[in-house]
Amino acid sequence: MRIDGRKYDQIRPIKITRNYTKYAEGSVLIETGDTRVICTASIEDKVPPFLKGKGEGWITCEYNMLPRATQVRKIRDITRGKVDGRTMEIQRLIGRALRSVVDLKAIGEKTIWVDCDVIQADGGTRTASISGAFVSLVDAVNVLHKRSPFKIYPIRDFVSAISVGIVNDIRMLDLCYLEDSRAKVDMNVVMTDSDEIVEIQGTGEQSPFTKEDLKELMGLAEKGIKNMINAQKNSLKMDSLWIGTGGE
Amino acid sequence: MRIDGRKYDQIRPIKITRNYTKYAEGSVLIETGDTRVICTASIEDKVPPFLKGKGEGWITCEYNMLPRATQVRKIRDITRGKVDGRTMEIQRLIGRALRSVVDLKAIGEKTIWVDCDVIQADGGTRTASISGAFVSLVDAVNVLHKRSPFKIYPIRDFVSAISVGIVNDIRMLDLCYLEDSRAKVDMNVVMTDSDEIVEIQGTGEQSPFTKEDLKELMGLAEKGIKNMINAQKNSLKMDSLWIGTGGE
Amino acid sequence: MRIDGRKYDQIRPIKITRNYTKYAEGSVLIETGDTRVICTASIEDKVPPFLKGKGEGWITCEYNMLPRATQVRKIRDITRGKVDGRTMEIQRLIGRALRSVVDLKAIGEKTIWVDCDVIQADGGTRTASISGAFVSLVDAVNVLHKRSPFKIYPIRDFVSAISVGIVNDIRMLDLCYLEDSRAKVDMNVVMTDSDEIVEIQGTGEQSPFTKEDLKELMGLAEKGIKNMINAQKNSLKMDSLWIGTGGE
Amino acid sequence: MRIDGRKYDQIRPIKITRNYTKYAEGSVLIETGDTRVICTASIEDKVPPFLKGKGEGWITCEYNMLPRATQVRKIRDITRGKVDGRTMEIQRLIGRALRSVVDLKAIGEKTIWVDCDVIQADGGTRTASISGAFVSLVDAVNVLHKRSPFKIYPIRDFVSAISVGIVNDIRMLDLCYLEDSRAKVDMNVVMTDSDEIVEIQGTGEQSPFTKEDLKELMGLAEKGIKNMINAQKNSLKMDSLWIGTGGE
Amino acid sequence: MRIDGRKYDQIRPIKITRNYTKYAEGSVLIETGDTRVICTASIEDKVPPFLKGKGEGWITCEYNMLPRATQVRKIRDITRGKVDGRTMEIQRLIGRALRSVVDLKAIGEKTIWVDCDVIQADGGTRTASISGAFVSLVDAVNVLHKRSPFKIYPIRDFVSAISVGIVNDIRMLDLCYLEDSRAKVDMNVVMTDSDEIVEIQGTGEQSPFTKEDLKELMGLAEKGIKNMINAQKNSLKMDSLWIGTGGE
Amino acid sequence: MRIDGRKYDQIRPIKITRNYTKYAEGSVLIETGDTRVICTASIEDKVPPFLKGKGEGWITCEYNMLPRATQVRKIRDITRGKVDGRTMEIQRLIGRALRSVVDLKAIGEKTIWVDCDVIQADGGTRTASISGAFVSLVDAVNVLHKRSPFKIYPIRDFVSAISVGIVNDIRMLDLCYLEDSRAKVDMNVVMTDSDEIVEIQGTGEQSPFTKEDLKELMGLAEKGIKNMINAQKNSLKMDSLWIGTGGE
Repeated sequence: MRIDGRKYDQIRPIKITRNYTKYAEGSVLIETGDTRVICTASIEDKVPPFLKGKGEGWITCEYNMLPRATQVRKIRDITRGKVDGRTMEIQRLIGRALRSVVDLKAIGEKTIWVDCDVIQADGGTRTASISGAFVSLVDAVNVLHKRSPFKIYPIRDFVSAISVGIVNDIRMLDLCYLEDSRAKVDMNVVMTDSDEIVEIQGTGEQSPFTKEDLKELMGLAEKGIKNMINAQKNSLKMDSLWIGTGGE
Repeated sequence: MRIDGRKYDQIRPIKITRNYTKYAEGSVLIETGDTRVICTASIEDKVPPFLKGKGEGWITCEYNMLPRATQVRKIRDITRGKVDGRTMEIQRLIGRALRSVVDLKAIGEKTIWVDCDVIQADGGTRTASISGAFVSLVDAVNVLHKRSPFKIYPIRDFVSAISVGIVNDIRMLDLCYLEDSRAKVDMNVVMTDSDEIVEIQGTGEQSPFTKEDLKELMGLAEKGIKNMINAQKNSLKMDSLWIGTGGE
Repeated sequence: MRIDGRKYDQIRPIKITRNYTKYAEGSVLIETGDTRVICTASIEDKVPPFLKGKGEGWITCEYNMLPRATQVRKIRDITRGKVDGRTMEIQRLIGRALRSVVDLKAIGEKTIWVDCDVIQADGGTRTASISGAFVSLVDAVNVLHKRSPFKIYPIRDFVSAISVGIVNDIRMLDLCYLEDSRAKVDMNVVMTDSDEIVEIQGTGEQSPFTKEDLKELMGLAEKGIKNMINAQKNSLKMDSLWIGTGGE
Repeated sequence: MRIDGRKYDQIRPIKITRNYTKYAEGSVLIETGDTRVICTASIEDKVPPFLKGKGEGWITCEYNMLPRATQVRKIRDITRGKVDGRTMEIQRLIGRALRSVVDLKAIGEKTIWVDCDVIQADGGTRTASISGAFVSLVDAVNVLHKRSPFKIYPIRDFVSAISVGIVNDIRMLDLCYLEDSRAKVDMNVVMTDSDEIVEIQGTGEQSPFTKEDLKELMGLAEKGIKNMINAQKNSLKMDSLWIGTGGE
Repeated sequence: MRIDGRKYDQIRPIKITRNYTKYAEGSVLIETGDTRVICTASIEDKVPPFLKGKGEGWITCEYNMLPRATQVRKIRDITRGKVDGRTMEIQRLIGRALRSVVDLKAIGEKTIWVDCDVIQADGGTRTASISGAFVSLVDAVNVLHKRSPFKIYPIRDFVSAISVGIVNDIRMLDLCYLEDSRAKVDMNVVMTDSDEIVEIQGTGEQSPFTKEDLKELMGLAEKGIKNMINAQKNSLKMDSLWIGTGGE
Repeated sequence: MRIDGRKYDQIRPIKITRNYTKYAEGSVLIETGDTRVICTASIEDKVPPFLKGKGEGWITCEYNMLPRATQVRKIRDITRGKVDGRTMEIQRLIGRALRSVVDLKAIGEKTIWVDCDVIQADGGTRTASISGAFVSLVDAVNVLHKRSPFKIYPIRDFVSAISVGIVNDIRMLDLCYLEDSRAKVDMNVVMTDSDEIVEIQGTGEQSPFTKEDLKELMGLAEKGIKNMINAQKNSLKMDSLWIGTGGE
């Protein structure tokens, strides 16, 4: 049994609140256990310089934690004078994950800014951010769709993420902070609704792991991803992207 | 009648949620109309260099807006590379307002960090921040009080803030964003429960104003402050600071 | 009697030297007691991005102190890596004060940069800066007027500023540094020659103040402003802006 | 056949030059094909603040490319004003990889700074950096060992890294730049001489991949790692760490 | 004849005003023609880290131009975000020049901060800064001497600087801005009262120069230095440093 | 006899390796004794803003040391947050030296970026950089020449640099690090193949020097420059620039 009574292959309760704030084209509060992240998707009618004139869109992400989202108050980036490496890695990861399921040409010359601001951190903030950000992205894309319907609906598949790891020699799904801080192996997996892998990042800094571990952890992750994508579908009230939005 | 149906001397609905997040010693969500601010108070067991060894405490504030708290997405400070002047002014203002009602010697060599993060901005974010921050400060001070009771309870009085202004030649209380953006005169007032002024900042950049205006605006502000302090008292479930917390 | 022998409602001697340096369109040394500030106004033939193509001009201000303008040497901003909050507040205040009396449309697509560099600081540097900057602004506007006469003279009124405060429970006008450092209440007031208020910023961080205090301090400020505007008129050798410059 | 005539499961020629520069405790030039990286390991007799007094050592890495290591000149970080996200990810990865095989307690309160400066980049600079950095680390640790022999030799295992990926639907080992720039799936793997995984980072931003792909790519990586570790052993003239350095 | 009527080997009028501001231990306004620089020397009772505990003092310099010291307004360093290379070179030069004539051991563990702020720039600001800074340094050292007499008077010799150059193929002394901007060769020379060279920096970016040119320019510089040192002596009212200050 | 057995007027062995890396238009490794610098010249088809539309080219230089090029590891600029003054001086010096022998109009609207990255520092890195950078510049200019022959060959003369100094009262040529760190007088000289001076920078911070010293040091420098220019000619396989490259 785990700290919070869960089974090893069980994820925490997921709650997704859409339209959480009123200005953003997509605005979602995602809660997985005690981890809470506000994800907003904002449309801008231009693209970064490297895409100008190519007829393609772009999706970029920024991730941040409120100073007291954590047990000990974290100094703001602007006070330290730079974004720390962890934050950079996470926001690059979220951006890649979202772009992997989007047809950027179908979007046209627009940028969608996705902001993930962590209100409360209890492990798994980066994976919760991806899962929540995807829902806000769908809402923002549907705002564009209502303004002027897409010929090709730009979102090709659902995408979600979950963490897995090895704690006290036991492989576990969806680590909370206390588990995460003791994990010898820590892995984040991003997958689509078609069971394909978008990203896998596993690290055994404190102790290397075997190929068998890798295989088992991937199995746990797959299970968690399915739960998360179900939660996304329920929240968006659609079984598939094509029927719900691009549709007849 | 105003945009949102209020009378000129009427403030927007106030909602104060304590214990909004789980780690901070004080954690408050304050909502005034559509303006929503998360205020946390965090205790640190040391003081800034200029106070070392003086036996006094310190209260400092940081203010920030989530990028999509506003109609148009605002670039993060860390991306611009600096805190903008408006943010600096606001966080200095909040800090002064809180310190004005606290006996820093009674607190001892501790710093209380107050973070005001605006989730949604619809005018009056700096005054809502002061009013919410005060409640989070009381909660944090009471955490200290429980750990080791103060001889002198460090908070001397309630403090709240409200905005007033002149819009279309009419003097108004508690401006929402649409009113604020058209105001010719804009004033923020910070007052205590003893009806005393802690801070007044009025500006008529677009058109100067008279001493008569100043007097009338102060009257409106006083009315708004009373409402706000009542909301603080209800939320904290105490009529006065001494009875509620210091007490027997 | 005050430290320097003045009455409570008496301002320090004012000296305004125009054409203090040779390159700037307007260049003024203002001295109020031992406070000395160089104010220059520089014309640039373009406007900031947010005004491009609107046919309007802009006035912006930068404020700085030489490192040894003060008793203890102050580290330069560039060494600290950022402008401190106090400086930001002051330069924003000076900018608003000047713009409040100028018809920016009449100026056309030009920016006037006003630089206030404090050579020696003995209290009241921000208010001296406003009063001196106004004179440099008039000189710069008149340079434009000579190049190509304005149809509408862009400066609508004189503007000056003064500090007031409560020191040892006594309300005083134009605080020098020693008084300022002991003041419980500190207020800066910006007014026009038409007796209207452009800006009021009062703070009672160390002890709140009453509405009666506010009223009395405003009276003192009004008196100081009149003296300061007289000094501006004498220096500019004009009784009113319209006769002296726009005119026949 | 590949661009440079290699087979799909073949790595490029590896050349490791020890003692490449004269000041660093460990100094290695590693060449894998046309990719060339200078790796130095420098000993500092103190640890970062978070380790002070704990009796443990630390290994940290910095990674950089000379401006013209690439086809198009890259602006220096100091000119852009910040380290880019890619660089941060890489230097964090190298640090984790090295620390995973080192007993930091055995090292004592010292920091080993590993600098990887890319002279010429033709794909795989991060994996070459890890492989070369490990050799420089061994040399630096042996300098410490000669000064004062370790009771427990601090390096537990060899560690190397290699890239794999899917290009034109073909799974390949050790991608050169031209292959890397066309890869739909890109994966970097760090493994020890005991066939265990230290880190796996795979991304299919342009197209997700299957679990079958993951398995096959891991097999290729394992093969490449074996070659690389052989090159390290030859260069260090030791078959195992214990015999070669910690003594019989 | 030159632009301003001077002979080729003639320097501009020099005016040195001591005690220009009231707080600094040494405070000088130096004017050479239309070039005006405020030089202050400030005493700090500690030394930089690299000198701690060595019983030696340090002299360091900062140089800056007010934004409108020049014909076109110059953006402040803090706005650009960095000190420009020219400023860095100049402040390093001034520091070396002053330290070259001071016995830093005799000063003891103190830092003297010399600030050179250019009010108006008409060529030769770096050499005027050196010459003026020296006078402010003597005044600051004499403040220390009065507090507690030195056994060895720390200043060993007078030091001054002057510019020379080749303009329109003519070698000239003390270039004003118009001459400087057309000079093909530009040289700054720092010398002592003992006719020795402390620093020589000559550049022929637009056209190389001969050894004959070098010799002749050195002769002109020597003449200018003598004039400048005389001005320093007159201002300080002392013929030699030992009699005037160390003495009986 | 000197530390490394050289005579006082003898330079260290020079080795120039062209085409050191494969991407840059010019790429040189220069070694003078143990000092090793990679110099690359990169062509960019645009000019800085101040030259736009003038039909002229520009040459700019950046200089850097790898962290462990020195005995003690040097913190990277990006970690310190700024380029240090020494680096700025050096890169400005290299840029001026190269531009002094180039006809920028003949180059047309192009920028040549010269990067000097020090791999190993044993004194004289700035002069080695100039001498090596010149060779890389010739190679880059010849790349342009091959693409489209110049009417006027843009390089007018060879340029080289060398250091001289006074160590233990002895005047010496080409100081290594140990000599440089003990030198009382330190001078860098840049000269052309026509025996003309491009730049002279001499400093006697620790003890001033005489005109006789200056003359003798110039003589030593001249000798060293001749050796260095010979090495450049041998490396480039041309006796004069015009015959080797501009010609038939």
